[in-house]
Amino acid sequence: MSTEYDPARTYELDRRHVFHSWSAQAEISPMVVTRAEGSYLWDGDGNRLLDFSSQLVNTNIGHQHPAVVEAIATQARRLATVAPQHANDQRSEAARLIAERAPGDLDRVFFTNGGADADEHAARMARLVTGRPKILTRYRSYHGGTQQAINFTGDPRRFANDDGKSGTVHFFGPYLYRSAFYATTEEEECARALAHLEQVIELEGPATLAGILLEAVPGTAGIMIPPPGYLAGVRELCDRYGIMLIADEVMTGFGRTGAWFHTAAEGVVPDLLTFAKGVNSGYVPMGGVVLGPRVYEHFAHRPYPGGLTYSGHPLAAAAAVASINAMESEGIVANALRIGEQVLGPGLAALRRRHPSVGEVRGKGVFWAIELVADRETREPVAPTGGSSPVMAAATAEAKRLGMLPFVNSNRIHAVPPCTVSDAEAKEGLEILDRVLDRVDALVAEG
Amino acid sequence: MSTEYDPARTYELDRRHVFHSWSAQAEISPMVVTRAEGSYLWDGDGNRLLDFSSQLVNTNIGHQHPAVVEAIATQARRLATVAPQHANDQRSEAARLIAERAPGDLDRVFFTNGGADADEHAARMARLVTGRPKILTRYRSYHGGTQQAINFTGDPRRFANDDGKSGTVHFFGPYLYRSAFYATTEEEECARALAHLEQVIELEGPATLAGILLEAVPGTAGIMIPPPGYLAGVRELCDRYGIMLIADEVMTGFGRTGAWFHTAAEGVVPDLLTFAKGVNSGYVPMGGVVLGPRVYEHFAHRPYPGGLTYSGHPLAAAAAVASINAMESEGIVANALRIGEQVLGPGLAALRRRHPSVGEVRGKGVFWAIELVADRETREPVAPTGGSSPVMAAATAEAKRLGMLPFVNSNRIHAVPPCTVSDAEAKEGLEILDRVLDRVDALVAEG
Ligand SMILES: Cc1ncc(COP(=O)(O)O)c(C=O)c1O
Ligand SMILES: Cc1ncc(COP(=O)(O)O)c(C=O)c1O
Repeated sequence: MSTEYDPARTYELDRRHVFHSWSAQAEISPMVVTRAEGSYLWDGDGNRLLDFSSQLVNTNIGHQHPAVVEAIATQARRLATVAPQHANDQRSEAARLIAERAPGDLDRVFFTNGGADADEHAARMARLVTGRPKILTRYRSYHGGTQQAINFTGDPRRFANDDGKSGTVHFFGPYLYRSAFYATTEEEECARALAHLEQVIELEGPATLAGILLEAVPGTAGIMIPPPGYLAGVRELCDRYGIMLIADEVMTGFGRTGAWFHTAAEGVVPDLLTFAKGVNSGYVPMGGVVLGPRVYEHFAHRPYPGGLTYSGHPLAAAAAVASINAMESEGIVANALRIGEQVLGPGLAALRRRHPSVGEVRGKGVFWAIELVADRETREPVAPTGGSSPVMAAATAEAKRLGMLPFVNSNRIHAVPPCTVSDAEAKEGLEILDRVLDRVDALVAEG
Repeated sequence: MSTEYDPARTYELDRRHVFHSWSAQAEISPMVVTRAEGSYLWDGDGNRLLDFSSQLVNTNIGHQHPAVVEAIATQARRLATVAPQHANDQRSEAARLIAERAPGDLDRVFFTNGGADADEHAARMARLVTGRPKILTRYRSYHGGTQQAINFTGDPRRFANDDGKSGTVHFFGPYLYRSAFYATTEEEECARALAHLEQVIELEGPATLAGILLEAVPGTAGIMIPPPGYLAGVRELCDRYGIMLIADEVMTGFGRTGAWFHTAAEGVVPDLLTFAKGVNSGYVPMGGVVLGPRVYEHFAHRPYPGGLTYSGHPLAAAAAVASINAMESEGIVANALRIGEQVLGPGLAALRRRHPSVGEVRGKGVFWAIELVADRETREPVAPTGGSSPVMAAATAEAKRLGMLPFVNSNRIHAVPPCTVSDAEAKEGLEILDRVLDRVDALVAEG
């Protein structure tokens, strides 16, 4: 049996023995989470918080979904782990269910532990299959924390880890609100972003480019839904220049945008697709790469030079099987789409109209960003990219005080509840955001 | 609930949808594992096999230990996951239990998903704390499959991934049976290996060296227990030249060598220590880095630039808590030490005397290598480093036929049962190995 602690002891031991991700260790004060259910969690003081973060945008099925919880308990009692070289029914079935939902001819799954190693292995496959060295990725992107993945990443967290030798080249993607291309319409932004990408390809040298690694929708960087035609345009460029398209669906996959996969919904078939998070809502760590015949054939009679101890872990796979089946039978993906169209989309648009500090809201499904600005004309952000500010700190604190846990990055609040969120919960979230934005408006007005 | 399949369907779906680690996909024929308990597992045909592999040398507590299984089921029902920025009782307690067992002043834990990312983050910490670029690692070592970790690795699996830009320099470690230093005694091997390492440090330039990353005992590369004084000598060199010592205890940690940590048992305190596998026997994926005040202070008021979605995962942590507590209360670490001293050590020595194809046996605890040679004089291995051969394939097949699953690498059979293995099971394993070696002797004699 595991040991249960009171929140004070949990906190004390955390401060004494736990080293946290992405943090100045002595300057953080982690919130103790004692319990969670559906769209809610409880902190160490017994406060109930509406989880509009889905933790790190991973609990797509909500907290403690009973079918997934019971599948984990059942599989723990059946067979917790086997090595990757053997075969196991949960792994086989998880691979089948994922392949069935993946776009086009992507029909095989290489399982990893999370998103970073999924992206690393996908890029390795692209490099080995094409025989080319470099990977193109977007500025304003996140691909993980391991050395290669953080160098793929186009966000300031890369800087301290960038040795200039990772073989990554960053380009600009479509982001109309802060267009790198001086575009004024979606169509213009799309056309110019594709023209820019083609120029980068030509000037880097197509024969040096193994893959374009692209979040299907950039997530942590700001939920910039690509304009219609952009992903298809990138696919076309990849075809034209013999480059592999690697779609990172770690955050978008398994319902977040109201589809199993955003690429599939857009009718775009990448050569490699990576996933993690929503595959089993992170109840057990798991990620992976989905690949098609071209990659498979390359490694049919030549060993793939990569692996990990927990590839295709039975407990993680059982959680994925249960989660995908529950999402299917309970219409959870459709719910995410509907909530976006009927509740979050219109609700956030109304908040934008009401609050001068909101520069833009954008998103789809249960995947929305609220971009906060000091001035709607200049679009000056209230916090720098990758940084914080008193306004953003106040917004976060106010949200928590009002009973909501938001996902905050730079000058943005992301409204990213679970795909299971109900209309009432989504509305509760909008109401809290309304009051948070009152506070932001006031702070911005004070200057 | 998760779906259960019959073995034929498991196999069929595996072949259709699962992409396996380190393999030529069309040339493998994975064994279906349907069930496991303690030191045994069952294949798809209902055969019971003695698990002398511990899968990938990770099920230190044996298969399906009831206390760990129940802790997983309990925690799944309490709280499967929370994000790394929050605090959680299972994570706090796991960190406390690990810190308590770690050598010297290592008292904080950065949790990862496995061994590769643990090594990546430890090296990153060493680079950032020292401000120096390069990492020294051993030839004949394994540190993981992600890009940076496979480049740390000193085994042929690196070759296809080596772009010459990883900032890693490999040196030779002590391995008396195939001495790189023409040594004839353990003492000589130790002294010469340290002199070699010091030369490498001087000629690489100490001011360019952030860390020496070293398996406490090289595992997959051959279980070469370092001679007395070697690890202490490396520690001394690190102190002399301002280099951080990173001990990789991913395979050695949590009982494998008959100690909680091999470094601690040897009285050596590294600056950073990595673990995975035995921390919870891989029932739920988890790894991590243990660090002391020097690394902590560097990141006390400066963000550590690294992280991952599942850092400090509650379900994985609950499994670690239960596993460490069960190992403690059931004397499992002491059992591993005793089995090595009383059963496996003497038994394998006897096999070496009896079988001319055995060049050397070496190990400690439940961590033993049998090195197979075509000729005891020349020590010619029966398979190349990182490769296979008909003799090794026959040995593996024969072991399985006789009811044992061995861990096989290059020209070696590793006898690496769980730390919970009983005297009778260890003896059963030795008897099977005896018959496997009869077969190897015969094949070698045939030429
Ligand atoms: C798009 C994307 N890719 C990759 C990752 C990395 O995943 P992990 O943290 O599991 O390594 C993330 C995590 O946030 C992500 O959002
Ligand atoms: C010594 C050592 N380090 C690191 C690793 C990598 O661990 P993982 O496979 O969990 O990434 C292994 C795995 O076998 C190992 O034996």
